[in-house]
Amino acid sequence: MKDYAEMSKDELTEELKNVNKTYDEYKAMGLKLDMSRGKPSSEQLDKALPMLDALTSKDDFHTADGVDTRNYGGLDGIPEAKELMASLMNTKPENVIVLGNSSLNVMFDQVARGYMFGIMGSKPWCQYKKVRFLCPVPGYDRHFTVTEKFGIEMINIPMNEDGPDMDMVEGYVNSDETVKGIWCVPKFSNPGGVVYSDEVVKRFANLKPAAKDFRIYWDNAYCVHYLYDEEIEILDIIEECAKAGNPDMVYEFASTSKITFAGGGISAVASSQDNLDDIKKSLSSQTIGHDKINQLRHVRFLKDKEGVLNHMKNLALDLRPRFELVNKTLNEELGGLDVGTFSTPKGGYFITYITKDGCATRVIELCKEAGVVMTGAGAPFPYKRDPHDNTIRISPSYPSLSDLGQAAKVFTVCVKKATLEKLINA
Amino acid sequence: MKDYAEMSKDELTEELKNVNKTYDEYKAMGLKLDMSRGKPSSEQLDKALPMLDALTSKDDFHTADGVDTRNYGGLDGIPEAKELMASLMNTKPENVIVLGNSSLNVMFDQVARGYMFGIMGSKPWCQYKKVRFLCPVPGYDRHFTVTEKFGIEMINIPMNEDGPDMDMVEGYVNSDETVKGIWCVPKFSNPGGVVYSDEVVKRFANLKPAAKDFRIYWDNAYCVHYLYDEEIEILDIIEECAKAGNPDMVYEFASTSKITFAGGGISAVASSQDNLDDIKKSLSSQTIGHDKINQLRHVRFLKDKEGVLNHMKNLALDLRPRFELVNKTLNEELGGLDVGTFSTPKGGYFITYITKDGCATRVIELCKEAGVVMTGAGAPFPYKRDPHDNTIRISPSYPSLSDLGQAAKVFTVCVKKATLEKLINA
Repeated sequence: MKDYAEMSKDELTEELKNVNKTYDEYKAMGLKLDMSRGKPSSEQLDKALPMLDALTSKDDFHTADGVDTRNYGGLDGIPEAKELMASLMNTKPENVIVLGNSSLNVMFDQVARGYMFGIMGSKPWCQYKKVRFLCPVPGYDRHFTVTEKFGIEMINIPMNEDGPDMDMVEGYVNSDETVKGIWCVPKFSNPGGVVYSDEVVKRFANLKPAAKDFRIYWDNAYCVHYLYDEEIEILDIIEECAKAGNPDMVYEFASTSKITFAGGGISAVASSQDNLDDIKKSLSSQTIGHDKINQLRHVRFLKDKEGVLNHMKNLALDLRPRFELVNKTLNEELGGLDVGTFSTPKGGYFITYITKDGCATRVIELCKEAGVVMTGAGAPFPYKRDPHDNTIRISPSYPSLSDLGQAAKVFTVCVKKATLEKLINA
Repeated sequence: MKDYAEMSKDELTEELKNVNKTYDEYKAMGLKLDMSRGKPSSEQLDKALPMLDALTSKDDFHTADGVDTRNYGGLDGIPEAKELMASLMNTKPENVIVLGNSSLNVMFDQVARGYMFGIMGSKPWCQYKKVRFLCPVPGYDRHFTVTEKFGIEMINIPMNEDGPDMDMVEGYVNSDETVKGIWCVPKFSNPGGVVYSDEVVKRFANLKPAAKDFRIYWDNAYCVHYLYDEEIEILDIIEECAKAGNPDMVYEFASTSKITFAGGGISAVASSQDNLDDIKKSLSSQTIGHDKINQLRHVRFLKDKEGVLNHMKNLALDLRPRFELVNKTLNEELGGLDVGTFSTPKGGYFITYITKDGCATRVIELCKEAGVVMTGAGAPFPYKRDPHDNTIRISPSYPSLSDLGQAAKVFTVCVKKATLEKLINA
């Protein structure tokens, strides 16, 4: 097949006619498919089911240090859960607080604390006229929803292959004291699948923030979420920050939502002792403690990092074929047409497709009309504004393989159609 | 024994000598007892253990409407959990959102929403110079910790036998627009054990708040927590508010913390549709959903209101003897001495002991020195300031019967000693 860019107007029109025919055929099928959501599949969740048997009435419900998990207390989590979550983040248990089922809630709460009470005695953000966060893009829509909720101004930072554009990050952070934070997904970023290089992590750790309450919000959501045997490690940001003389500059977050149950996991925040003390000061007026039974259940089931990694290998058996099917379909159907590019991540939950400028909204619209729901256009950007209208998040994790195969095919037809329309009307 | 008030100085001094002897004997025993914490006992928690078997890998993990509880979603809780929690609060399932393990956290979040975002479009409290909450006293210390954390000024409202002094409540709420809320524990109040009368509930419902974002924070923490067969009901505040033309004036809270597991229960907020919509607007940026598996586990174990009430009868078998032992000890040791009064609640978790003015701090101090930890002096009051220094919260739920019996005896000796010291030095 010829590269679309090399086609004459007549050839393009002829090709669009063919594509339209295929598109209309799909449309007539009344499909109901969904590649929009980063949800685990049922098969994947089934593999965590034995966790429900890991703590029954016959089992001991005490922690290693003798605490009854059924009763009140344990503001910062049970010791064995701290150990487990620390191992996933490659940090020390004493740097960790283990909390409830949602790391998003933990991040929301942390931003809320900055807004309501201020970070470590700094002026609460609600007393500022302007507070800004840096947002590497494309990024995770729910991060942006949190900052938008607080009226925090968001600034796009382009992503390179090894992480955010650090010249730009340094430019803002080191000179602008209204910049109070940056959202990062440092490993298998959502949605680009980018892994931050050691150099990028070090440059983060060596920032010289103009604002003393500037923090890196390091959402290590996919810390052990490998698709292949290759276990890619990133530098421990907490240690790097400490080494660089910035021990308090980062909050790291993680959860088991995509390890055990998406609705019933446990979450954690890791940071310096001073940051944890600051968090606990407000956490102690917020709750008596999180669900320690579920924390213990997780430890009994997953045991330790090795247990988690084995479990993730098991999960990859379901995830990998899904990613590879989408990859194969995109290659087969769109290869050589010069209609876009896509990521081939080695972990995480998403594939990013980059269309020709100005085509993403149209592709997603066409998919929808043909019964394939995609993540909304613009979602990976603050305020849902994709400056080039070219970024599409594909979520292969949830649908069955057969649904996914069909959805991916429909998607490719929509990419062709949108690109052809664009070229013809150019 | 003669009433202390009728004793001569010499008699008092003689009596103090005897009391001191007993006190010193207890002190020499090196006791380590605790009546400070409203925690369930192990025996009580054991009775909820079968809940851990109510949802294992062999069981169906779908909700009544087919949702997979293991996956993301369900911002407002699963339908069957709404039904269960609604039944405990005597309200309708559509008035309920079911959340995580801590109703304290739900209340904190609700105050935080008022502070950060405002209630239903009202000005956020963080933009006011002064915001005030009414606090019926004695009350729940953790309520006061929440409002204090936000710098909200707290105003004491005396409690009568049938609820707060409603003349005073109406006086403030109906005229002062800085008054944005009132903390209530309407049934078996913490710590007084007071049950709000129908008249009090109706007067609440018929308030005419000066502030349109005034809300009643109705913490129905002990809604089914009976010590005896008598099931005391209070009026449904949500319905009464609706009838009175104030449908949005109340948030009601409840949890299963003292029904199943104190660390691993589920919580709920109940309110009008408009309030729930307002809550969900902010909740949706905060989390994808709470632990639906634990919600389903609760429903499978408790089933329905009848199931809960039967379970509570079972728990009362452990709680009732504890309350009765304290009651008996107080009567036997202090009866006729005119050294104080105490509550005889029919439910809830606490007994309140009212000493002679100016004795509470000393009693608690003496207890501590003799190895009996009591809730801190002043705890049931905003800013920990007990205006008469006379209110002591006794928590009989946690210790074993034999520990409790001894702790109660020590307590009575300390009450005698503190009162005698006071009378002698008067």
